[in-house]
Amino acid sequence: MSTSTLEEFRSKTCEIVDLRAIQENLEWDHEVMMPAKGSPLRASQASTLAATVHRRIVDPRMGDLIEELSEADLDEWDRASLREAKREHDRVTKVPESLVRELARARTLTYAAWVEARKKSDFESFAPLLEKLVSIKRNEARCLADGGCLYDALHDLFEPGMTSSRLDVLFGRMRPKLTDLLERIRNSSVRPDPSLLEGEFSIELQREFGKKVLTAMGFDWEAGRLDVSAHPFCVGLSPQDVRMTARYTPDTFAQSLFGMIHECGHGLYEQGLDAVRYGQPASQAVSLGIHESQSRLWENFIGRGQSFWSCWLPALQETFSESLSGVELDAFLTAINRVEASFIRVEADEVTYGLHIILRYELEKALIEGELEVSQLQQTWDDRMEEYLGIRPRNAAEGVLQDVHWSMGMLGYFPTYQLGNLYAGQLYRQANLDLPDLQRMVSQGQLLPLREWLREKVHQRGRLLLAEELIEDITGEPLDPRHFLDYLETKYARIYRLD
Amino acid sequence: MSTSTLEEFRSKTCEIVDLRAIQENLEWDHEVMMPAKGSPLRASQASTLAATVHRRIVDPRMGDLIEELSEADLDEWDRASLREAKREHDRVTKVPESLVRELARARTLTYAAWVEARKKSDFESFAPLLEKLVSIKRNEARCLADGGCLYDALHDLFEPGMTSSRLDVLFGRMRPKLTDLLERIRNSSVRPDPSLLEGEFSIELQREFGKKVLTAMGFDWEAGRLDVSAHPFCVGLSPQDVRMTARYTPDTFAQSLFGMIHECGHGLYEQGLDAVRYGQPASQAVSLGIHESQSRLWENFIGRGQSFWSCWLPALQETFSESLSGVELDAFLTAINRVEASFIRVEADEVTYGLHIILRYELEKALIEGELEVSQLQQTWDDRMEEYLGIRPRNAAEGVLQDVHWSMGMLGYFPTYQLGNLYAGQLYRQANLDLPDLQRMVSQGQLLPLREWLREKVHQRGRLLLAEELIEDITGEPLDPRHFLDYLETKYARIYRLD
Repeated sequence: MSTSTLEEFRSKTCEIVDLRAIQENLEWDHEVMMPAKGSPLRASQASTLAATVHRRIVDPRMGDLIEELSEADLDEWDRASLREAKREHDRVTKVPESLVRELARARTLTYAAWVEARKKSDFESFAPLLEKLVSIKRNEARCLADGGCLYDALHDLFEPGMTSSRLDVLFGRMRPKLTDLLERIRNSSVRPDPSLLEGEFSIELQREFGKKVLTAMGFDWEAGRLDVSAHPFCVGLSPQDVRMTARYTPDTFAQSLFGMIHECGHGLYEQGLDAVRYGQPASQAVSLGIHESQSRLWENFIGRGQSFWSCWLPALQETFSESLSGVELDAFLTAINRVEASFIRVEADEVTYGLHIILRYELEKALIEGELEVSQLQQTWDDRMEEYLGIRPRNAAEGVLQDVHWSMGMLGYFPTYQLGNLYAGQLYRQANLDLPDLQRMVSQGQLLPLREWLREKVHQRGRLLLAEELIEDITGEPLDPRHFLDYLETKYARIYRLD
Repeated sequence: MSTSTLEEFRSKTCEIVDLRAIQENLEWDHEVMMPAKGSPLRASQASTLAATVHRRIVDPRMGDLIEELSEADLDEWDRASLREAKREHDRVTKVPESLVRELARARTLTYAAWVEARKKSDFESFAPLLEKLVSIKRNEARCLADGGCLYDALHDLFEPGMTSSRLDVLFGRMRPKLTDLLERIRNSSVRPDPSLLEGEFSIELQREFGKKVLTAMGFDWEAGRLDVSAHPFCVGLSPQDVRMTARYTPDTFAQSLFGMIHECGHGLYEQGLDAVRYGQPASQAVSLGIHESQSRLWENFIGRGQSFWSCWLPALQETFSESLSGVELDAFLTAINRVEASFIRVEADEVTYGLHIILRYELEKALIEGELEVSQLQQTWDDRMEEYLGIRPRNAAEGVLQDVHWSMGMLGYFPTYQLGNLYAGQLYRQANLDLPDLQRMVSQGQLLPLREWLREKVHQRGRLLLAEELIEDITGEPLDPRHFLDYLETKYARIYRLD
């Protein structure tokens, strides 16, 4: 290998990173800024850009460079970048163009059908399209799997290195613990009062208060923004340009505030990536699961915790004095941590959330492995909801049709949400060990030490390691759901006064 | 030629249009949305995108397609698209990559030096870099000119079809008329009172009032936006997504309002392009000059006219009653149309503006043709200011260093500003002939008939014709500066009570 081979590799991968960032910018613009009529012609622009990125990835010269460098003596960053570039190049070149086109077409149709089907709560009309899409996804998985596990081949797009045999173990250990905890909470005499959180909340003040919290978390406003969109999200165009969105409703502050803290968890990760290594495939977030661990850690472990609110509740009450004066800390904490079996995943609490995910994981795996027909999906969904959560959807809209993912061909995505909780549980435990003073600092409004810890341990290291390797490296032990379960047990035993 | 050749040509040109639109979106985002620290890494993204566009244009396959289609029987749109694609392909392939890189480097350095030099009003330190840049631009012009006129080769980038021999005639006829009119205005006893326009103007109300005016002009807010930036501008990402910006100061409404009307003139042009033909090179704005004719027509011919304000002044006074109550229409019109020789082009009135442009045109042409050295530039500038406008800059910042264009290698751009006025003059005359009721309608707030006229005559026709051909086609005669001069004479004779 010559130096120029490495230079050419770096330059080509940086171009892909650049074009991906531009894609993110377009998507952000689409959700946040684009005027209503702009959509159809923007679709042409976005599709040209996607084709451009695709061509860069499949470029045979990229394959040659990866080959040439595979025996080279590289530093850890270039080695990790090479691994990532190879993973991407292989993945994209393994799937024939005809299948890519077929998939794109099916996705568009199925998504459009899902929008209509959900409105009418009509699974029947949606099922044939989903069946077709699942069959194409299975073909894609076959191309990617090289004879291995089909589900793993798809899940690997979102959580590299994680396998369904690992997930089976992890989720298998969690499920009985979660259902048991839920049962005990159900039998508790403590009754949270969610009406404490309702009232009149000026959107301007919600935004201001939220920005104060995010500032305390260490979000750099010169390297990022906060805007409004229908569904909150966060994109990092670079570590120096990170954009979050929020959604406000005037009758409660809780939705927007916890949403902002969540997105800021993602945002701090993106801002914490090494800007000097921008453009290197290794200098990006490890995986969706690790990304989600950052948002969950801030939103739930910190943002719905006692330490945090013992500092922030007075400020919140001062901001919204009409609606919140007189609310006690304990009653407030109980209200924002209310546990209740419910149908809609995105509204679920910390305890039941995992059961929603496990259900989806089991079903999508069975679909991909050919063990479940789409025609049986609604029935199986409803039965399992009853088994895990003790409630049965009254219709498809609050059941099998609620999530967009499958209609967009995103099979293998759901586990990353729950992995986020597991990673967060293990990281949070370690942070408390490494920073014995953490709770006191949080209760005094000092959130920067935690951000620094996460930055050093997680953010700055990009993709040097895979997700599980990173967790093991930071905490000294393999991923173990016990830490997350212990956290839930301790927290909810206190709130619900469980034995 | 087979149908598939045409299909491939259309698809390739559409991709270039798409990528250009994305470039525009990135630039808009840079000026309007991007957080402060985002700039350096955005530069990497923008440069990757620029290289991508460049590769698409020079793609030899594009050359083959153009060749294959040159003998084909095409409809007028495809023929015009072919002409535009060929012009672009030839232009880009004629300049060797080494020169392109040299130019990009020199531009970056010279622009940075200009920023500093203007701050310190120090032409000396800037001159060597500008000299180098001019010499590279001359090399570029030599590549493009095929032995023809060097200046024309550069000007053609901005105003296809226009030549310096034409400009010499047009500007030659204008200059004495403008200096004469300026002289007569100087000797008039009418003294405009600009303080009428000053006061306290809430930025929120300025924005609201401006939006009312732009709505009356027919700007479609579902296909566009208005934001804030340091320098007002307008970009069309597609006819369905047009973005304008404004700049507000609290001590006068005039700067923001006339800026908004100006940008909306551009915006209506972009919205008026045929959305169905989006992606065809022929379905874009004809030239910078025609673009400027739209903004000038709305800003000056309409927006600084008596008919317009006889409708809008009461509403303006109601909005800003503290500052504007009691102002009479005539005094108001005189104030917003004050003519005065001044140093800074962007602040110049309708009469002196042309003289600023003629001066720049003469100097940049002489530089490119090798008839003027950069070392003589400041002296020549100052002398000519004195000759044309009767005032002599006290320093380089209010003279030769005021404009950014040359430092960015944009030589050949300036004439388009004045051509905008000439085109506007001839179009405005024709509009008044075709719509005999135009002034009455404008005075009743009905601006849509003019927008419709412009849409049909100019916007919808894209680049089917070159700029001068279009003007001749619409008005039945070649471009003639007389119409613009007549407009100035009539308007300012009335305002300044000239003989």
